[in-house]
Amino acid sequence: MPDAELFPPEQLFDFTVRVFRHFGVPAEDARTAATVLQAADLRGIDSHGVARLHSYFDMLQLGRIDPKPHVTIVRESPSTTTIDGGNGLGLVVGPKANAIAMEKALAAGSGWVSVRNTNHYGIAGYYVLQALERDLIGWAMTNTTKLVTPLWGAERMLGTNPIAIAFPGLEEPPIVIDMATCAAAYGKIEIARRAGKPIPAGWAIDRSGSSTTDPNAMVDGGALLPLGSDREHGGHKGYGLAVMVDVLSAVLSGANWGPFVPPFALRQEIPTRSVGKGIGHFFGALRIDAFIDKDEFKRQIDELIRTLRKTRPAPGTNGPLIPGDPEREAEAIRRREGIPLVTAVVEELRDISRQTGIPL
Amino acid sequence: MPDAELFPPEQLFDFTVRVFRHFGVPAEDARTAATVLQAADLRGIDSHGVARLHSYFDMLQLGRIDPKPHVTIVRESPSTTTIDGGNGLGLVVGPKANAIAMEKALAAGSGWVSVRNTNHYGIAGYYVLQALERDLIGWAMTNTTKLVTPLWGAERMLGTNPIAIAFPGLEEPPIVIDMATCAAAYGKIEIARRAGKPIPAGWAIDRSGSSTTDPNAMVDGGALLPLGSDREHGGHKGYGLAVMVDVLSAVLSGANWGPFVPPFALRQEIPTRSVGKGIGHFFGALRIDAFIDKDEFKRQIDELIRTLRKTRPAPGTNGPLIPGDPEREAEAIRRREGIPLVTAVVEELRDISRQTGIPL
Repeated sequence: MPDAELFPPEQLFDFTVRVFRHFGVPAEDARTAATVLQAADLRGIDSHGVARLHSYFDMLQLGRIDPKPHVTIVRESPSTTTIDGGNGLGLVVGPKANAIAMEKALAAGSGWVSVRNTNHYGIAGYYVLQALERDLIGWAMTNTTKLVTPLWGAERMLGTNPIAIAFPGLEEPPIVIDMATCAAAYGKIEIARRAGKPIPAGWAIDRSGSSTTDPNAMVDGGALLPLGSDREHGGHKGYGLAVMVDVLSAVLSGANWGPFVPPFALRQEIPTRSVGKGIGHFFGALRIDAFIDKDEFKRQIDELIRTLRKTRPAPGTNGPLIPGDPEREAEAIRRREGIPLVTAVVEELRDISRQTGIPL
Repeated sequence: MPDAELFPPEQLFDFTVRVFRHFGVPAEDARTAATVLQAADLRGIDSHGVARLHSYFDMLQLGRIDPKPHVTIVRESPSTTTIDGGNGLGLVVGPKANAIAMEKALAAGSGWVSVRNTNHYGIAGYYVLQALERDLIGWAMTNTTKLVTPLWGAERMLGTNPIAIAFPGLEEPPIVIDMATCAAAYGKIEIARRAGKPIPAGWAIDRSGSSTTDPNAMVDGGALLPLGSDREHGGHKGYGLAVMVDVLSAVLSGANWGPFVPPFALRQEIPTRSVGKGIGHFFGALRIDAFIDKDEFKRQIDELIRTLRKTRPAPGTNGPLIPGDPEREAEAIRRREGIPLVTAVVEELRDISRQTGIPL
């Protein structure tokens, strides 16, 4: 990574905890929130770690997020719960809601929790890793601020609405799927923009709705394309998945959906309408031994992983990866060597340090 | 459609019922199976309707599918069930398993059913439409015979593994998502092949694992690419979704997965190994009012649909569709005008007619 400075994970964790504590976030919640952000930084998903701390900081400082939210159960059944997150940090509300999904699964075979009145919750992958520790198949989705056009649209209407799900192996590491439902991450557009390089066709449209290879044209009023990019390559499928995530996370809970999802960062525009409360998440958990012997399941997952790894490789590649491989490899390196932060992020952390008096 | 002959839906339905009855499928099961196939033909998914009847016919005639399966519950919890389909028609086992998911949802808020020892079950969309009739959010997945390469692979390892989910509106028609997890349907390769036309890059690889625009190169030992096509456009995401469907449908139930899924048609090769029983399905149902007031949910779905329809259109388009629009439009036309069958399909039905004595 160019111009990156390495930080010990513990140092960033402690700083993050103290920043949240500064705004009155209770000690345990602050540690949970820092753990979720840390998971992103360790797993190489740099856009979702401390790179976002300044946005959380801004929202807390402006009083747009409640540091001590009153999280309530709105409705429940043996296997489902609707949660109101009390406009708390998604990094705090998310883990609480996920814990309820997991408890329900232990009791009823599965647990499904839709959450309203919450805020951005970090990486979806964090939640499904939590489920793995309890031998559960975990699901996590969330809607996000608009950035993606529906297929055949010319404007931002949907978030990057990620889906995560994970399956445990016995001897093999788990399969961990964590994917946004758009073709390419916004972070990649930003990188191309800073480097002054074009982006591949199929990632984005400009403000007229035409496909563009100019990252500035996307940033300046354009939009990301859904997974599949165009009709010919299945862009209607990525669009459909984004709608699915929006409905399960927000319509089912009573949160804002589509273009009305509130912004995460100060630079983003405030929606013209409110159709619910906050943003929405959706969590699920399935108890494996409600379906099949747990070890038998894990043995078959091992076999599936080994079978996929033995796929004949495409020319110029080392063959297929297993979902979760890149993140696990990043984590092994970063735990050893530290977390690389680019200069812009380090400066943001220094700014927080200056404003709060918390040493970095 | 070129060289297509129109058939009244009732005529095809009656013929299909009689073909299944010919093999000893019980009357009610035969009607269910014909209803599922009919749904594909009405909704314009021509590859999954009576175009497949000859394959079912072959399998029944060879005794590879049990016309009177013993469908059993292997394991269950308040919100989950594992089913053994007794090697019955997927068109019969699928609806029974889906009914159990829906019953569980009515009692426990949600219901999740993984099915092993079953066969191809028609369109995934059929099952989620059934759930809509009970004001449930339905999910349906199934694994299928290998046809798709993992990203960076050079061979068929996974099925087209579809995902369907549907959400009811109040005044608006429902959102119905029904999508294979590959970039393009095999049927489109076949159409290009017959027409002697190239296929777009991003749909398929040849037997060496290189991207190809020659439909013959895909058919002759090549493979379809996952949704997203290549790494740059998110091919790892489509691959991840295909793995998810495979695990939920087959590893969780004890069915065959990946390259070991048994073939659906006689021309397909028999896998070298068996790692479970038959193919696998996965059904889910969520009771809407376990989460939120049902009418409030439907009103918001109406609003979401209207909001998405108002998206500024991309140049050269009429703007975004709502998932399910094309299928609903096809059904309106076909109920009125009849179901168009291409000559090759009509000849297959005539062949069945000759062999069974059932008049077409």
